[in-house]
Amino acid sequence: MTFGVRSVHGVPSDYNLQALDYIKPSGLHWVGNANELNAGYAADGYARIKGVSALVTGFGVGELSAINAIGGAYSERVPVVHIVGTPLRAAQEAGVCVHHTLGDGNYRVFAEMYEKVTVAECILKSGPVYIELPTDMVTVQVSGDELSRPMDIEVPANDPETEEAIITQVLERIYAAKRPHIIVDGFSSSYGYRQEANELVRATRFPTSAAIFGKSVIDEQNSNFIGVYSGVFGNQSFHAWAQSCDLVLRLGPLDSDTNTYGFTTVPDPEVRIDFHGHSVDIGGINAGLEKNNKIHVKSLLQKLLRRLDQSRLPQHENPLSQFKSPKMAVTLSSLEQDGLITQDLFWKRMSSFFRPGDIILTETGTAYTGGGEFELPTNTTLINSSIWLSIGYMLGACCGSALALREMVSEYLRPEGRIICFEGDGSLQMTAQAISDMIRNRLDVVIFVINNDGYTIERLIHGMTESYNDIQPWRYLEAPNYFGAPRDDPQYPVTTSQASNWGELEKVMSNEKLQSGKGFNIVEIMMPREDGPETLKNLAAYVAKRNRSTNSSMA
Amino acid sequence: MTFGVRSVHGVPSDYNLQALDYIKPSGLHWVGNANELNAGYAADGYARIKGVSALVTGFGVGELSAINAIGGAYSERVPVVHIVGTPLRAAQEAGVCVHHTLGDGNYRVFAEMYEKVTVAECILKSGPVYIELPTDMVTVQVSGDELSRPMDIEVPANDPETEEAIITQVLERIYAAKRPHIIVDGFSSSYGYRQEANELVRATRFPTSAAIFGKSVIDEQNSNFIGVYSGVFGNQSFHAWAQSCDLVLRLGPLDSDTNTYGFTTVPDPEVRIDFHGHSVDIGGINAGLEKNNKIHVKSLLQKLLRRLDQSRLPQHENPLSQFKSPKMAVTLSSLEQDGLITQDLFWKRMSSFFRPGDIILTETGTAYTGGGEFELPTNTTLINSSIWLSIGYMLGACCGSALALREMVSEYLRPEGRIICFEGDGSLQMTAQAISDMIRNRLDVVIFVINNDGYTIERLIHGMTESYNDIQPWRYLEAPNYFGAPRDDPQYPVTTSQASNWGELEKVMSNEKLQSGKGFNIVEIMMPREDGPETLKNLAAYVAKRNRSTNSSMA
Repeated sequence: MTFGVRSVHGVPSDYNLQALDYIKPSGLHWVGNANELNAGYAADGYARIKGVSALVTGFGVGELSAINAIGGAYSERVPVVHIVGTPLRAAQEAGVCVHHTLGDGNYRVFAEMYEKVTVAECILKSGPVYIELPTDMVTVQVSGDELSRPMDIEVPANDPETEEAIITQVLERIYAAKRPHIIVDGFSSSYGYRQEANELVRATRFPTSAAIFGKSVIDEQNSNFIGVYSGVFGNQSFHAWAQSCDLVLRLGPLDSDTNTYGFTTVPDPEVRIDFHGHSVDIGGINAGLEKNNKIHVKSLLQKLLRRLDQSRLPQHENPLSQFKSPKMAVTLSSLEQDGLITQDLFWKRMSSFFRPGDIILTETGTAYTGGGEFELPTNTTLINSSIWLSIGYMLGACCGSALALREMVSEYLRPEGRIICFEGDGSLQMTAQAISDMIRNRLDVVIFVINNDGYTIERLIHGMTESYNDIQPWRYLEAPNYFGAPRDDPQYPVTTSQASNWGELEKVMSNEKLQSGKGFNIVEIMMPREDGPETLKNLAAYVAKRNRSTNSSMA
Repeated sequence: MTFGVRSVHGVPSDYNLQALDYIKPSGLHWVGNANELNAGYAADGYARIKGVSALVTGFGVGELSAINAIGGAYSERVPVVHIVGTPLRAAQEAGVCVHHTLGDGNYRVFAEMYEKVTVAECILKSGPVYIELPTDMVTVQVSGDELSRPMDIEVPANDPETEEAIITQVLERIYAAKRPHIIVDGFSSSYGYRQEANELVRATRFPTSAAIFGKSVIDEQNSNFIGVYSGVFGNQSFHAWAQSCDLVLRLGPLDSDTNTYGFTTVPDPEVRIDFHGHSVDIGGINAGLEKNNKIHVKSLLQKLLRRLDQSRLPQHENPLSQFKSPKMAVTLSSLEQDGLITQDLFWKRMSSFFRPGDIILTETGTAYTGGGEFELPTNTTLINSSIWLSIGYMLGACCGSALALREMVSEYLRPEGRIICFEGDGSLQMTAQAISDMIRNRLDVVIFVINNDGYTIERLIHGMTESYNDIQPWRYLEAPNYFGAPRDDPQYPVTTSQASNWGELEKVMSNEKLQSGKGFNIVEIMMPREDGPETLKNLAAYVAKRNRSTNSSMA
């Protein structure tokens, strides 16, 4: 029972080599990442597509290099199984001064750090777990009986009385609403009720928006889907409408400052019903709490959908025509061939590149908010980071999700699609070795490197022209050359291209090889260094103002 | 009072940008590393040369990416000041859900992790310290009075009685010894008594060896210096002699499995006097302990040297002629032009490249034990890692030490010299961005990349031909091209070269540009994938055997 894990991410270390012997004979693929941080990021990306992933590192040094990635998986609820090869138990008990320890005989230090960013139940809690595997345990015979018994990942049925009370309350609020609004967020996927969320949106036909972390959870081709809700930093009239709603159903909310655009998308508690993983908050109060019952919200949503009486749904207004962006074609019609590629139109332009089945990754920075402007076809997946925001993450996640996609297509679990990653220049420099991992594993990817000459997201926050926001100018298109991509292999074609204006971009995008998404494709997009999507500029100004303030009132 | 820190390593983050505003106006140089792990490694390398260093990262994500480097600085006693820009205090107190947190309102998690790998007194304890700087504290006015008072880094005088008792005991043992031996180790530098260690070696003329971590602490041109003591894995007759000694003075010992070659270089407690930083162990017993006194060993050594009566020194035998390696010229005379470059001779061959003033860095792996075979000119410094052994560290340390050297030469604190780094291929892949940092800062370096097609140190331990020990074959010499080195700048020349046999190596080494060490120089040395220095092969076999065992008896 591998829950679909067919590849193991990681880096060898003398304390895990014995364990690695068993990977290939088990029919598993060893990814062999260039470093542990990238291995961790890739495992996270793989898990976001496949549901769970495995990561193997060494003790001490290896695991500490990966801990930032595991912190991200913890904060954004991604099930990663991290196995650490540790020294033999007798050495640990005796406190022997071996390499990769701190030299003080304390072998527990690293596990104690990991305790803070891991959970005990990977699938049920949707988070990373940490398993120590001492080298002397690798060959110890243990009973295999447990393997023949399918793991019980079903949650026991909800307490009927509690569940019934919640469903009744929710339905009453739904039927009584005059101005309802659904906000779908990313934890819907972590909690496993992506499908139920879509059914609720279809069944109610309520105006629906997405938190940026929830982008792509709901089929954007639904007529009642509006787009990403960016609070006070986005469309002002939509924000005014959203604030006037008398019922807001929020599915899988992640209420970080970034994901809620400075908490401005969070409705008043009185109008709010929040569906989490194991609780429902109605009017700001945990609805199962008086009986101290945890509620499996996926099951509850299924019952709710069955009970929903469409004839009792309110005749709500449809604010869509008012708020939806004008169609791309119109917006882009005036693009001048030699005009600089600007953030206000670039993201809209790129929407026409997407096809059903694609997995799109938007790195923290301009691509993060820019990605909020994409119009996505049915059956596309968008990955971003909305609280951890560790730049460099997306290139690793691109590697992992490309591997997951390839496996799932071959298993008939997903339709054909492409991996399309929008990466910043400063971010790419953090984790550039992930490109080597992609090439080594012959993964099909399309990477757009936004070259705007430095950390533009930081510039927008503070120090627009300060040299600390500069980076070393790499020759990004030399990546496949440096990282050893094959030079003429029809099985793994390589394309590199650059666009500095709209005309060049059009030419690049018309390349059929690039469009196919096969092989390794990298496009360098030159953009002005002080430019950003409007919502990012607004968000950055907010963060800057808050960082300068001396109280938390803005929070 | 900056203790000579003129550069600040790190990566910008929105929680530290305000603080970065003050770096340039303070006359400090911002290094601007490509990622935080490399910044941490570079800060470590800088501190090993200059005595202390500064590192600035962001909160959460940034600091977790650097924690492996700080773990290394802790275990190998390197004073690094790590300043973390954190969210404003009011937000922390209110537990606001901001980005770069875990989303649970707990802002203490990361500091709690760091508590395990940092000390409170950077210089006195010789270790990394952790300082949080909330964004709202950056502009808060504080009294500058403390800045005008020189920091008191002197240790109070030792308790005279305790010190006297120890010195007397040590001298008695020295005068009475029949077969004395000094083993100098790397913590001598951390504890600040490198000079006293050299004086003791010169004054006693006792046969002296180095632990591999202590390589370069003692001037190797001393006639009584033997070389690195590799215990049972090195020269067998020397090991037999060392085991027969009746007095072993150990200076700054680091008793890890690697540094002691499986603990086989550690003498019996009865014959041993160990000088640490703040204690002296005589016959295995802390000599100041009965009075609960800490002893400042540097001061004690100075007094000991003044009290040493050379006329009472024992007429000890000189085992040197027996154990010293035959001169390089002889060994290398038979090298065939088209012969493969083998580990048994490569390191000896490279010794002739070194000049006084050079800083030599040997990465964990074949270069680590290979470096033990170097014959170093006076006034050279060798850096290796002997307990943390995090591969990839050395490329970052190369960047930091090159910067430290440049500054110290300009301050007339060090003679001119070159930075010569021996790096593995698998190690280089971990932290390749450090090359970008070197180029960005126009640092003069010579990097020898040992390309032996994978993780050879792991192969020697386990899985010689297993694919998990393979790596992606990069085109290493494309690094300056990829990382944006200038293509034709006389101020910063770039050389790239490759050697696959002895003849090619000789040709490469005769290049005057390379010899000058100016600009960026990278040499790819092709070596057989299953080859290693003899001592490494022995050490690896020991580690492998221990990892397979089920008890700690080998430890």
